[in-house]
Amino acid sequence: MARIVLKFGGTSVGDIDRIKNVARTVKKEVEQGHQLAVVVSAMSGVTNQLVEYVQRIAPLYDEREYDVVVSTGEQVTTGLLAMALQQLGVPARSFQSWQLPILTDEAHAKARIESVATSPLVDAMSAGEVCIVPGFQGVTAGGRITTLGRGGSDTSAVALAAALQAERCDIYTDVDGVYTTDPRITDRARKLAMVTYEEMLEMASLGSKVLQTRSVELAMNHRVRVQVLSSFAEAPGSALPGTLVVDEEEIMANGLEQSVVSGIAYAKDDVKITVDAVADRPGVAAALFGPLAAANINVDMIVQNVSHDGKATDITFTVGKADLARAQAELEKARNVIGFAELKIDPNVAKVSVIGVGMRSHAGVALMMFETLAAKGINIQVISTSEIKISVLIAADYTELAVRALHTAYGLDAA
Amino acid sequence: MARIVLKFGGTSVGDIDRIKNVARTVKKEVEQGHQLAVVVSAMSGVTNQLVEYVQRIAPLYDEREYDVVVSTGEQVTTGLLAMALQQLGVPARSFQSWQLPILTDEAHAKARIESVATSPLVDAMSAGEVCIVPGFQGVTAGGRITTLGRGGSDTSAVALAAALQAERCDIYTDVDGVYTTDPRITDRARKLAMVTYEEMLEMASLGSKVLQTRSVELAMNHRVRVQVLSSFAEAPGSALPGTLVVDEEEIMANGLEQSVVSGIAYAKDDVKITVDAVADRPGVAAALFGPLAAANINVDMIVQNVSHDGKATDITFTVGKADLARAQAELEKARNVIGFAELKIDPNVAKVSVIGVGMRSHAGVALMMFETLAAKGINIQVISTSEIKISVLIAADYTELAVRALHTAYGLDAA
Repeated sequence: MARIVLKFGGTSVGDIDRIKNVARTVKKEVEQGHQLAVVVSAMSGVTNQLVEYVQRIAPLYDEREYDVVVSTGEQVTTGLLAMALQQLGVPARSFQSWQLPILTDEAHAKARIESVATSPLVDAMSAGEVCIVPGFQGVTAGGRITTLGRGGSDTSAVALAAALQAERCDIYTDVDGVYTTDPRITDRARKLAMVTYEEMLEMASLGSKVLQTRSVELAMNHRVRVQVLSSFAEAPGSALPGTLVVDEEEIMANGLEQSVVSGIAYAKDDVKITVDAVADRPGVAAALFGPLAAANINVDMIVQNVSHDGKATDITFTVGKADLARAQAELEKARNVIGFAELKIDPNVAKVSVIGVGMRSHAGVALMMFETLAAKGINIQVISTSEIKISVLIAADYTELAVRALHTAYGLDAA
Repeated sequence: MARIVLKFGGTSVGDIDRIKNVARTVKKEVEQGHQLAVVVSAMSGVTNQLVEYVQRIAPLYDEREYDVVVSTGEQVTTGLLAMALQQLGVPARSFQSWQLPILTDEAHAKARIESVATSPLVDAMSAGEVCIVPGFQGVTAGGRITTLGRGGSDTSAVALAAALQAERCDIYTDVDGVYTTDPRITDRARKLAMVTYEEMLEMASLGSKVLQTRSVELAMNHRVRVQVLSSFAEAPGSALPGTLVVDEEEIMANGLEQSVVSGIAYAKDDVKITVDAVADRPGVAAALFGPLAAANINVDMIVQNVSHDGKATDITFTVGKADLARAQAELEKARNVIGFAELKIDPNVAKVSVIGVGMRSHAGVALMMFETLAAKGINIQVISTSEIKISVLIAADYTELAVRALHTAYGLDAA
């Protein structure tokens, strides 16, 4: 008998019929003898409606009251799913965050979970009840309702699985697993049976929407085995149809052949900024990036050219498209201190990344990337690397071509 | 500086613009220096939507989980109104039932309030904050969410006013007070400046929808001064524009001339059942009404005819239309024990009532009623009386005629 946490997102509980379908999926797990805690999101559209109410009331709202309003969507789903399970003859009850409690810090609207009290859940599960818990929320030590920020239900599920020392945390979503690349770009993309936390983190931060980044960090820190699987699969409850996100040791212990590269990711959310003709002297980078950091603007890839003449150089970097206007304003304000000639903005860029823990122990992974792109005539504008990832910035028009070429080059194509 | 509880119902907070309007009304009370707690309903339509979800999930639902679902509507309004007040520069915050707590018994979906812990509210009000509290709900000693049953927000407001020893409980609704009779029947109906708890109770139980019966009982028991007033009035916050529900002493102390009769009420919710030719012997009434009481069917007016021949008699009584089918079934089951010839059913009846605490000390009130109806050729089928009320059952077609004639006869017509 295993203890498992299941999590169902907004589209999985999108309407009454889908909630009934989720109840059937949960029932199949119950019939396998597992003890279950289920984390649910709000029915799709509900949270957006509540956020719209708040924005119409007060553009600059009190985040404590915002949390009171938007946390209700998940509460509704907990009660409905508990009743749907009872209707199928499965004992079930809901537990709101304050009833456990799930304690968070006081950063309303973007709170972090500090602890999960599990004894009410353990008691109920031992008595044969399925426990339904709202995702995305908690309560402060002072007893006020908090939310974790959008997408926080994944984090709720992983935190609960960690606290319950669950054997697995199953994240039911609208895709059936993690793929070697976006299946919309190539029909040769393959579903991965297993992927490491580190690789999943890179994929999540690179724009793969399968799991929220914080939930992967939390899973990695607490060694929570996460399974991504589809809530719309033909045979819910069948054995391991999704992708397991686990640590490297488990993958090796399973005797799976760990390929050097696990996947090719891409993101089109960034814009390239080139600061032209800045003085080539110590401290200029700090003068440039200091104001951006102070304004909480996240700078991603950075490259500094070799000086033209020992006096002036160019610095190129990327920021998120949403931050572009603020970044330009900050740089113009600091123009006299930095002393640059002009800012060149290029929004037509894409970041393409090769990800794999295997590259730690394999040479030549980067070289294969550069050669593959060169063979297709794709110019690399910026390069950045980490231990398990190589990213390049290219013209956005070449994104699909690059992804497909790399997918083939690293031997990821489905047979 | 007075402490006042305000309550706004579903239509008063029906959409975002109306919530903003409520915030303006509350602000005017704040500007008069009052300490305020505000009880709110769900936005109109929200609770019905949630109930429909529950019914689609499970026709025989777990009332504990029903309460988890339907209690969310009020929570949303508390947060939105707090933000709307803040937007007007008025410090405000929401308190959910479990945050105080408002303790109830464990009769989910129809719970009764047992106590209201007010110290968090008193602290906040003393610090200059308006406290927003959800109506219609509470929490059990074991920490599970309860609701009070439909219309329970009036009861929440009165219970809160009693616990806070508030000077007044203002119930904002879609009518601007209590009238001498239904203004849709006669344009000579007058708004009452004051009415006693006892009279209001009779009016509420006779179908006047202004206040929920339980809230009036609670107000009477705790001597909470209740004001009924319109949330759509031209000048919100102006002095006492509605009807005050208070005790008899306050009305007399105010030197108001207390008329013998305060109002004429009517109800068309009942059906008349005549049990024909039952044996005229001791115990037959018990044999008749025992099964109805056992089936939880409320019998209202009862009349037993004088025996025709010393052997058989007729018994006539009324039950709510919703209970008719069940009442018939119970009586048929007991037919052999009771021994009657037939059941005659007449749904085309109305109960018209004359209400007034003054009739305790005035003779001739009933006589005037009978004479007035006789003069209009209206036949009285059943009569029942209490200390402050005389009710008659008549043919439903004569309802409006009877109400208008009685309104004139008792001197209630507006000038």
